[in-house]
Amino acid sequence: MRISNEEKEQIVARIIDSAERQIAATGLSGLNLRSLASDAGIKPASLYNHFKGGLDEVILRVNSRTIKMLDQSLARAAKKADGEPVAVLFDSMAVAYLHFAIKHEKRFAALFEHRMANDAPIPEWHLQEHYNLFRHVERPLAAMNPNLGEDERRILARTIYSSVHGIVHLGRQGRLIALPVPVIEQQLGVITQVLADGLSAFAAKLS
Amino acid sequence: MRISNEEKEQIVARIIDSAERQIAATGLSGLNLRSLASDAGIKPASLYNHFKGGLDEVILRVNSRTIKMLDQSLARAAKKADGEPVAVLFDSMAVAYLHFAIKHEKRFAALFEHRMANDAPIPEWHLQEHYNLFRHVERPLAAMNPNLGEDERRILARTIYSSVHGIVHLGRQGRLIALPVPVIEQQLGVITQVLADGLSAFAAKLS
Repeated sequence: MRISNEEKEQIVARIIDSAERQIAATGLSGLNLRSLASDAGIKPASLYNHFKGGLDEVILRVNSRTIKMLDQSLARAAKKADGEPVAVLFDSMAVAYLHFAIKHEKRFAALFEHRMANDAPIPEWHLQEHYNLFRHVERPLAAMNPNLGEDERRILARTIYSSVHGIVHLGRQGRLIALPVPVIEQQLGVITQVLADGLSAFAAKLS
Repeated sequence: MRISNEEKEQIVARIIDSAERQIAATGLSGLNLRSLASDAGIKPASLYNHFKGGLDEVILRVNSRTIKMLDQSLARAAKKADGEPVAVLFDSMAVAYLHFAIKHEKRFAALFEHRMANDAPIPEWHLQEHYNLFRHVERPLAAMNPNLGEDERRILARTIYSSVHGIVHLGRQGRLIALPVPVIEQQLGVITQVLADGLSAFAAKLS
């Protein structure tokens, strides 16, 4: 049976939708190829006709959607703090990051827990989507200190992003050292203030 | 057959030694109850006679050893930077943390990836071992600013620890956004300087 390009696109979209629902409900470990295929009305083996990269590619496509949602959430937080001091802006974004991680717990975890089969490298297009999130931090850094070189700004943005990630990740992580949300918010308030003050000192040394 | 307390202790030690080797070689996912029992010369089912908490308890005991090693490594780094400015001290410990994570990759990962069976809580004694690591950061904070309240100092130490952890974790994490070691070291150098400068400003406001 021949199927049209339009039908093919619909099958691809149905598979991603279905994987998205499964990941949101039960996390990566709950992802089931058989039920993905059944939801899309195809045979399990023919999933590879639609996704050359198999299940890994399906997961990357879901993670892309998650990154897009996270990106919008950070953009909203940045907009809300528009015109405020940089400490307030950082805090607004950090708290948005925390609440995204709480609200979309399993999807957020999938971003960091997914491992490609056979140790294959993550495709470049997907890495770029991750890196692109750092621009929310790069922009205020550029405004704060126009003398900062591009490479230095990138490293700094990534460092700040990773710090906030570490606080959210360790604070929320399972039962290891899970903290109440207000305590994590307090931590984020402290670190963003400390970072903003430290960055001013750093900028002053450069200029 | 009756076995003496001494023999019992030897069996317990052999099981932990064997689990330690397995985790160091292949990570948590490589842990195999059958081969643990065989290494210790007991039947798989009788592992529960020696560890009431089963495999979880064995893993916690291995993680305790890893924490002790990490603790010694941080203590050495702190000692090496004794008398230096706080930024140098933080950097020394952050770089030690990074290199511990690299050298003992699978053991380090096991500290953060272990999930108790049936969502049981992590026992308090083990949580305390984790928390105890934060004292390496608390001590210089107390010296920097004696006006800092105990709670505030704890939150701050934990925040700094988590930030460094985030940078090491995201920087090293698999193929997601793995960075070359010198770049991570550069990130740690920046964040520790920024944190130290920011903390001085923070301390000045309090005093």
